[in-house]
Amino acid sequence: MISRVMSAKLAEHAGQRVTIAGWVHRRRRLKSVSFLVIRDRTGLAQAVAEHHLPPEVGAAGRGLLFEGGFAGGGLPPEESVVEVTGTVVANAQAPGGYELVSPQVEVLAEPCEAPPFDLYRPVVGAALPTVLDHAPVALRHPLLRAGLEISAASAAGFRETLDRLGFTEIHTPKIVGSATESGANVFGLDYFGRPAYLAQSPQFYKQAMTGVFERVYEVGPVFRAEPHDTVRHLAQYTSLDAELGFIRDHRDVMAVLREAVAGMLESVRDRAAPALDLLGVVPPEVPAEIPAIHFTEAQRLTSSDEPDLAPAQERWLSEWAEREHGSEFLFVTGYPMVKRPFYTHPDPARPGCTNGFDLLFRGMELVTGGQRLHRYEDYVRALAERGEGTEAYEGYLQAFRYGMPPHGGFALGLERWTARLTGAANVRQTTAFPRDLHRLSP
Amino acid sequence: MISRVMSAKLAEHAGQRVTIAGWVHRRRRLKSVSFLVIRDRTGLAQAVAEHHLPPEVGAAGRGLLFEGGFAGGGLPPEESVVEVTGTVVANAQAPGGYELVSPQVEVLAEPCEAPPFDLYRPVVGAALPTVLDHAPVALRHPLLRAGLEISAASAAGFRETLDRLGFTEIHTPKIVGSATESGANVFGLDYFGRPAYLAQSPQFYKQAMTGVFERVYEVGPVFRAEPHDTVRHLAQYTSLDAELGFIRDHRDVMAVLREAVAGMLESVRDRAAPALDLLGVVPPEVPAEIPAIHFTEAQRLTSSDEPDLAPAQERWLSEWAEREHGSEFLFVTGYPMVKRPFYTHPDPARPGCTNGFDLLFRGMELVTGGQRLHRYEDYVRALAERGEGTEAYEGYLQAFRYGMPPHGGFALGLERWTARLTGAANVRQTTAFPRDLHRLSP
Repeated sequence: MISRVMSAKLAEHAGQRVTIAGWVHRRRRLKSVSFLVIRDRTGLAQAVAEHHLPPEVGAAGRGLLFEGGFAGGGLPPEESVVEVTGTVVANAQAPGGYELVSPQVEVLAEPCEAPPFDLYRPVVGAALPTVLDHAPVALRHPLLRAGLEISAASAAGFRETLDRLGFTEIHTPKIVGSATESGANVFGLDYFGRPAYLAQSPQFYKQAMTGVFERVYEVGPVFRAEPHDTVRHLAQYTSLDAELGFIRDHRDVMAVLREAVAGMLESVRDRAAPALDLLGVVPPEVPAEIPAIHFTEAQRLTSSDEPDLAPAQERWLSEWAEREHGSEFLFVTGYPMVKRPFYTHPDPARPGCTNGFDLLFRGMELVTGGQRLHRYEDYVRALAERGEGTEAYEGYLQAFRYGMPPHGGFALGLERWTARLTGAANVRQTTAFPRDLHRLSP
Repeated sequence: MISRVMSAKLAEHAGQRVTIAGWVHRRRRLKSVSFLVIRDRTGLAQAVAEHHLPPEVGAAGRGLLFEGGFAGGGLPPEESVVEVTGTVVANAQAPGGYELVSPQVEVLAEPCEAPPFDLYRPVVGAALPTVLDHAPVALRHPLLRAGLEISAASAAGFRETLDRLGFTEIHTPKIVGSATESGANVFGLDYFGRPAYLAQSPQFYKQAMTGVFERVYEVGPVFRAEPHDTVRHLAQYTSLDAELGFIRDHRDVMAVLREAVAGMLESVRDRAAPALDLLGVVPPEVPAEIPAIHFTEAQRLTSSDEPDLAPAQERWLSEWAEREHGSEFLFVTGYPMVKRPFYTHPDPARPGCTNGFDLLFRGMELVTGGQRLHRYEDYVRALAERGEGTEAYEGYLQAFRYGMPPHGGFALGLERWTARLTGAANVRQTTAFPRDLHRLSP
């Protein structure tokens, strides 16, 4: 490995001559000094060189000028990959409070052209389409990178929490033989001459695996041929899916979800603190018990009689929860049967309602979940009631022929989570390489 | 949650009356006693009831018979989901050394039919096609489940090790605009009316993200339209991908891979010890430095002049490494340029050879990796030498226009890893729901 000190660790090497390596984040030539700000995966570090040294410094002064093909004070352009060797000295104005003086620079790779916008400016000086078209370089901007760090920390916290609760990680097929879960918005493909589809969710498989491991999760891509261009939908997104057996009802699922969300936030605080600071994000507190409101009550409060919640209602309800319960999270329970998939368990106490729930977070639906049916005959009946046969579901229904425990689960979209958490207006801002109606590259 | 004690924890409740819950793994009615063996996610537990109680026991003796619709000593059939309440007593013959006596049984769900083979027998009494056709129930067999537990523990160890080494997790597109990496064996799909393809690897994206995070990994599905029916290929598998910048050459990548493999094995020992025991698997030791042999030397030893290694040669070399170096792992370095993808970095010291390597494990190629090109002009030249233009690679090449560090990485197939580790002859045995030329369900 290139022998180097990370920029965040400079303070530990005060007085020593060390090598750092990274990208030229910014070069600045002033009258008597030049600065190079170097970016590595831990942050920024500054190297400073004086010009116009007295001639008697001679050979011994070589190190006082930036070198490596940039004689005469020439500085490598932004995004050059460099190693910089220098002496670490304290400077309260430098990033991290230390800088390198008497630097020598070795260039490892030169850029062919300037980035489409300046990566060193504190704000992103380009519109979203430009950012997305140039993702490989745009994501180097610390603000854009920060969202993805938070995303990675969130997924780690999700897995960590569920591992602790006895869940097992699974990997399920993304290519499936029938477009069954919702029918619409599915990508078709040619599978060795047969029609096949990209999985819209691991729903059927995670349920089946509840019969094997009782508690399972998957972090993986799901695919929706979403024909609308919205700020909250993607054609591919990362779904955090969990499913667990031996529940009493959906409230047990909600309790696990509460733990998962709290674990995600704890992990973000632990692992992505600099990213939070950079974005000025204060992660929310998760109440020990997230407030819950029944769908019919949510309708009453928002004076609606639609069988689903519109985005404006979700926003209103989130504000209400914040006001009434001091919570940025709100469960809405008891969604109507007509709006939930056939595998949803009905609420035994309220005809027409289900044991399905949504979790709203800062004005938007973040998670959908619920208790599922677990008896084979209930599936046959539920499909018949929707005018469907069991043929297309044979693989799925197999699990239920052999004894399945009462179970339920949930799915959380990672990009949407990160967008809500960081205040990004568009879910594309929290995806490295988004896929949508119009975008298939980079 | 259903209030219960896990079967593995019965010993902690000796003398108490507790409830366990799970599947009826086996029922046995003998002359004077009946047994129910219950399977939950932690293992097996036994409940035993005596028959023919003297009539005077009357109502007080209710609990001495299995109940819950199985009066008269009737026992719920295998794969019934049950709660069993009983008193914990020591019995050296019982699984775990404790059993439940005076049991009461409540049935939560009944199976519609018997499983396609007996799940309680120590060996799997069905051929692979039967197992795969009935995966949702077949995977409940402890031996089949064990492989997936080892797989989950391995992936956790991979992530844990790379997290510790400063890597960031990424999620990359599985739908791509051009079938570029290898050209052949790619699944085509209709993307909103445009042709698109399923990604064969996250190769291009992980390289680009090295420009953002320096060190990245992804655990996710990759897709190969593999037209051959072999025991080591799948149409979808889980790839453990890593890529890192600021390397000197491929040996830095090999050192990180060594750490990742050691971390995977450590995690398997920690998290999946019962699964290892059940399968009788002794995980290999990873040498502090895995032995490495140059490709030309491997050719000489196997008396070959082909530019790639055949399976028989891989087996021979693995045996040689075991014999000569006491290692079940062997690196083969310096693969010929003609057999490696265009992005492979040449070996500066040996014309025609690359800084690409494979890792052999127990007779089979487990990992492919190497140093990549990192300068834009080197990519243009490498493509031209293969008679290709840069058009199809524009998104990919973008990263290299803006300064990329020397970097490299590797990819490890999770299913193949688990198969090698557990001695499974077919990679389909270590995949919950495999996809191949003939199989698209369940």
